[in-house]
Order: sequence, then C-alpha cells, then structure tokens
Amino acid sequence: MATITLLTDFGLADTYVGQVKGAILAIAPGATLVDLTHAVTPQDVFGGAFLLWSAVEAFPRGTVHVAVVDPGVGSARRAIAIRCIRGDQFVGPDNGLLVPAVERLGGVELAVELSESRYWRPKPSNTFHGRDIFGPAAGHLANGVPPGQLGREIEDPVLLKLPEPNGLDGEVIHVDTFGNLITNIPARALPQRFEVRLQVRLQERRVVSGSHYAAVGRGELIALVGSADLLELSARDASAAELTGAIRGTRVSVQPV
Amino acid sequence: MATITLLTDFGLADTYVGQVKGAILAIAPGATLVDLTHAVTPQDVFGGAFLLWSAVEAFPRGTVHVAVVDPGVGSARRAIAIRCIRGDQFVGPDNGLLVPAVERLGGVELAVELSESRYWRPKPSNTFHGRDIFGPAAGHLANGVPPGQLGREIEDPVLLKLPEPNGLDGEVIHVDTFGNLITNIPARALPQRFEVRLQVRLQERRVVSGSHYAAVGRGELIALVGSADLLELSARDASAAELTGAIRGTRVSVQPV
Amino acid sequence: MATITLLTDFGLADTYVGQVKGAILAIAPGATLVDLTHAVTPQDVFGGAFLLWSAVEAFPRGTVHVAVVDPGVGSARRAIAIRCIRGDQFVGPDNGLLVPAVERLGGVELAVELSESRYWRPKPSNTFHGRDIFGPAAGHLANGVPPGQLGREIEDPVLLKLPEPNGLDGEVIHVDTFGNLITNIPARALPQRFEVRLQVRLQERRVVSGSHYAAVGRGELIALVGSADLLELSARDASAAELTGAIRGTRVSVQPV
Repeated sequence: MATITLLTDFGLADTYVGQVKGAILAIAPGATLVDLTHAVTPQDVFGGAFLLWSAVEAFPRGTVHVAVVDPGVGSARRAIAIRCIRGDQFVGPDNGLLVPAVERLGGVELAVELSESRYWRPKPSNTFHGRDIFGPAAGHLANGVPPGQLGREIEDPVLLKLPEPNGLDGEVIHVDTFGNLITNIPARALPQRFEVRLQVRLQERRVVSGSHYAAVGRGELIALVGSADLLELSARDASAAELTGAIRGTRVSVQPV
Repeated sequence: MATITLLTDFGLADTYVGQVKGAILAIAPGATLVDLTHAVTPQDVFGGAFLLWSAVEAFPRGTVHVAVVDPGVGSARRAIAIRCIRGDQFVGPDNGLLVPAVERLGGVELAVELSESRYWRPKPSNTFHGRDIFGPAAGHLANGVPPGQLGREIEDPVLLKLPEPNGLDGEVIHVDTFGNLITNIPARALPQRFEVRLQVRLQERRVVSGSHYAAVGRGELIALVGSADLLELSARDASAAELTGAIRGTRVSVQPV
Repeated sequence: MATITLLTDFGLADTYVGQVKGAILAIAPGATLVDLTHAVTPQDVFGGAFLLWSAVEAFPRGTVHVAVVDPGVGSARRAIAIRCIRGDQFVGPDNGLLVPAVERLGGVELAVELSESRYWRPKPSNTFHGRDIFGPAAGHLANGVPPGQLGREIEDPVLLKLPEPNGLDGEVIHVDTFGNLITNIPARALPQRFEVRLQVRLQERRVVSGSHYAAVGRGELIALVGSADLLELSARDASAAELTGAIRGTRVSVQPV
C-alpha cells in the first residue's frame, strides 16, 4: 500500500485536513498518510510549489502526493493527476502547483484530467475539492487504479517554473521557519571557495561560506549548501532573514575567492 | 483495524497529543491515527462540538472518534463512549461535546459510562483522562471490544445543541482559518437565487450569492454553500471575518431575489 | 512493526518533518509514525529533553524515538542511538537530548555512534541529519536491525540532567500550552495536605493544593499532581503562567499544612 502525502494551505485549526484524510481512508483504508505541511500561505501557489518540490525526493518511489493550494476551486480550472517518470504520482489543481516537483522526479509520464466522476465523492461541493475529488483520486491511485482510468489524458497542464539563476546570480526563493534564506543557486554551480553578496533594499552584505552552522560564531551569517542542495544563507542560532531584512526575491550573487 | 481520530484543545506545542497516541498504540498497535484538530480554543466545548460535527461524515463507517475538550476533568463529570446508528463510535467527556456529531451520524445507539477501570491505564491521573481513560477506551473499541463491556449503559448523556436557524434567519456558528463565516442555515433551506443580510454590530451588509469563490472579484464578499452544506460567507482571496467584523453569533438572514 | 515517534524543533511550516518521515518510510514502509511535538524552541536542548522525557512512558515497549534539537549539526558532535533497559530505542544527536528519557525507561543498555555510513541516506547533507542519518537509522531499528550494527559502541554519551529538587524545594521546569507550571517536585515527595510557595520575581504567592482543576473557582490557582506525576501549579480556565509571571526556573517550595 502506497504512502500518500498531503500539502495544503488549509492550516491546522479547522478539520479540513482531517476531512481529506477521512475521504482518502474511506477508499484506501490501509494507506500511510504523511503531512508535508499545511501552512502554505493561503493561495500562494508559487510558495506551495516550492515546498512540494523540496520534499518529494525523500519519499520512496511510488508515493502519491496530494497538493491543494487552489484559489480557483469551483471555477473552470481542471483537477488533474500526473504520473512522473520516477513512478510517483501527483494529484491537485491544474495551476502549476505540482509541476516543479514533477520535474524534479523526471518529468511527466502521463497527465490526466480527473473527469471521471465515479472516482469522486458523491455530490462534490464547489469549495472543497481536496475532500471531494483530490483525496478520493489519491486513494484510488494508492489502491492501484491506473491514472488513465481517472479521466482523459491532457497534453497541456498549466506550467509554473521556479525562477532560475543566471549563472552565479540568483535570488532568495524561500525563507524557512528558522529564517534561513534558501536561494535558487544549485550546489553544483558553486566554486570551491566563495563568498556571497546579498543585495537587500538598503544595503549590501558580504557573507563568507562554510560547511555547517557551527563554523561561525553565534549570530553570525554563513553561506552554505543546504539540505535541498541549494545555496543557503543562515545565521548561527539566529534568523538570517531578521538579521538582513531579506525576503523572497532578494538578489544573491556568488563570487569566487 | 479501525481508524481512530483525535480532536482536542491540547495544542501541538506539548507532547499531550503524542501521549494519547502512545496510550492508544499500547492497546491497538496497528490503528491508523488521524488528527482532526488540536486547536480548539481551550475549554470551548461548543467550538469543539462544531468542529467534530464538521468532520465525522467524511470518515468511513466504523471509525472511532476521540474528542477531549474537558474543563471538568477529574471532577464528577462522567467519561463516556457512544456507538451511533451509522456504526461509528465516540469517546470523550460527558459534557455534550460528542452529541452534535453523533446526531449527524444517525443518533445514539448505545451510550455507556467508562466505569470499568480494567480498560483504563493503570493509576489514571486526575488531569489527563485523554491519555489514561479516553485513549485506552478508543484502543479497545478499535480492537473490537463492544462498548457495553467498557461500562454501564446510561440513558442521560449531557446534551448540547448547535443553535438552529429560524427558517432563513440564522447566525454565524464558526469562523474558519480563512475567515470564512459558516452559518447554521442549511443548503436545503436556501431559495435558488438569494442574497444575504449580515447584521454586524455597527452596520448591515448585503452580500450576493454565487457558486464558488472565483465568481466575484478579489476582496469581494460572496454567499455560497460551503463544504458542510451550510450557507457560508466568504471573501475571494481575503477574510470575510476581517472585512465585516462578524464573529460567532452574528445574525445572518437570507432573502430571495 | 515498531512505532516511531518524532520530536524536533523544526516547526510545521516547512517540509522538514515530512522529509524525515519520507526517509524513514523509504526504509521501513509499514512503520507507524507519531509526532511528539515539533514546537521545541529552536536549539533549546534542555526544553526538548524535558518534552521527550514527558512522553516516552506512554508508548509501548519497543518504540523507536527520534529526537532532533541539534545546534551542532554538521560539526564534530556525534550522532547516536541508545537502547534502554525497557527495550525502547532512541536516535538523535549526542548532546544530552535523549538522556532524561532514557533514564526514565531504566537507563542505557547500549549506546552506539551512528558511524556506519551504509545505514545513512546516500550523500548526507551537513545541515539535515534528521533526514539523512537519524531518520534512516530509526527505520533500520524499526526493521529489527540491532543497534550494534549501526556503529561502534560508546561509553561516554554526553549527559544532561533535568534539575533535581532539594527535598520540597524545587523549581518550574516547563510551562505548558495552557500556562500550567510544571515543577520538578515528584508526587511521591509530597505530604498529604500541603500548600505551595511560589517565588516569582516581585512577589511571593501561596497556593493551596487540590486534586483537580475544578476544585477551585474560575481563575483561581491550585497546586496539584499533574499527569507526569509532578507537582503542577494551574489556574482553572486560565493561565497560571500569566497570572503569576512565573517562568522556567522560578522557585517553588512545598509546605505541609
């Protein structure tokens, strides 16, 4: 029985996540359910896409990922499922949310619109496709139903690209819980020894590189390769975001030393 | 093996929820555990009762629901289990918390006081019946122990009613994470085309109806049927609660157009 | 298949906890995963040690506990696993975090450094041993791999002691979600009838004892034996921490009456 992960902007104060899980378990009683996060900023499709991208590689091949950040729920936007080359499967709205994660696992093998209503919950609502369409679809996929049975193949899922760096010039693409600034510059592009110029609004900072947090003093900034194999700016026992004022989109450039 | 859900006001900052799960798994090792929410406002039995009510229908028949919002823990209030007509089972304090959810699944088939101490954790504390009495009881129920074995039948569980609307005059009964205002007016009572008068303290607002969030412009209010089949007031990409100042208890009335 | 618990300071806004779970499930697909808490104050090893201590007794013998509060990640600090006398196993950084919980379950039977890299995720990062070393180790332990295979035995794990009371003179060691003040004075040391002197910065308060919250009026303080079998100061339907200004370290002494 496959593992099913969930990523949403539903928060944990209501029972919405619980209801999605109930709908999944009604179809796939033995499924292992794992929360990726439910704290995506409401309606922030880009932020959700990054977070989904960040997590999928750690899961075993064949995992089913349900992601719901869905400002267009109930409108004409399609509900889709994608099987990627590595064999993992994704379910969610057709707004680009799933795309970077799918690319990370080899790209699209098959994309379908979830048009077959017999795989939905009866009488689906207009406001909660997580429970009524996406969750049940994930349950069926975990049970081994091939995605092609859930609806008609589509060739044109909506695309979304995480911003790419221009060589060693990139930007902050995520600020994490600890205030670490995660950039879009991949480890493989980095010179052996380097320092980083962080261009925040009112100033410019230079940050030296190191291999782990404890390599600098408390409260000091360090540039290192983070757990997503991306260049990260961190502060030991402190928040690099607070120290620097950097946010998503702040420019970062790397210089060999 | 049945699914066991948990709803509490314990929050997630301590290990209380984890301890309840440990106590369950000590009795029912293979149980599937699902969190409904642990963010009920501390001691808010009414709010917990609504949230439990909102979630149970999505779960498969036979699920065991543990709910703990329990200001009277350690006093004379009884600990109870209820099997409802649909076959699902509930465990929690006898303060009304379980009642609306039980009613939603067909009403009480059997209610018992958890008086048989051999189904408790040894030496139960006075302050944490979630771990010491409710969790173990849920584990035994998931293992197939009939509720009648857990204690003596009772005929008079404490009742709690969610407020009922008077025809098309109702009220806000829950404000969700997104600021949606969920009312107690059921979809089946609504005319085909309608608008809503929302009576907040200093003003009165009129809100038009629609079928989904994206039917209005950003930041605009809309009245629609939400995922609980209740009339909901929402704002596209915004919080209806913040926009209107409405809270639990704010009056709402529907007018055909 | 054993239960695996997780306790970290990762928060729930990112996918870090999800990634650890993915790494575990990649090795132990059928494991039951339970969150203890992920809201440990970042880098607060002592606070994490208390919370881990508070939870482990409720879990069935043989549970595997992964705990990560790890300011020294990537530095020379060792990664370790400990099998305790009761048979439960612990995985985490060698900074004392695991020690009070291990002591509670009978003490160390075997401690090893996680030096065998074939039990790690390939190419472990320097910043995320939760996913790359601890999670996989827990998966292998849950699969029945004996801890001695994960690395060389060590005799000198870093120690950490929760502060011990001096008879009936103790201190607050944890303030929980509800504002309850949990002290380090054990129930077995308490006289049958007692009152408590709480020494906060600007004042001294006397608090009477009782058996449960509802024994005093709303907003009133009470001293009782809490669910960890420790003396606790609580306020009915209110926060004892807010009422008194007490924090971790505030002195508490008990006097027989």
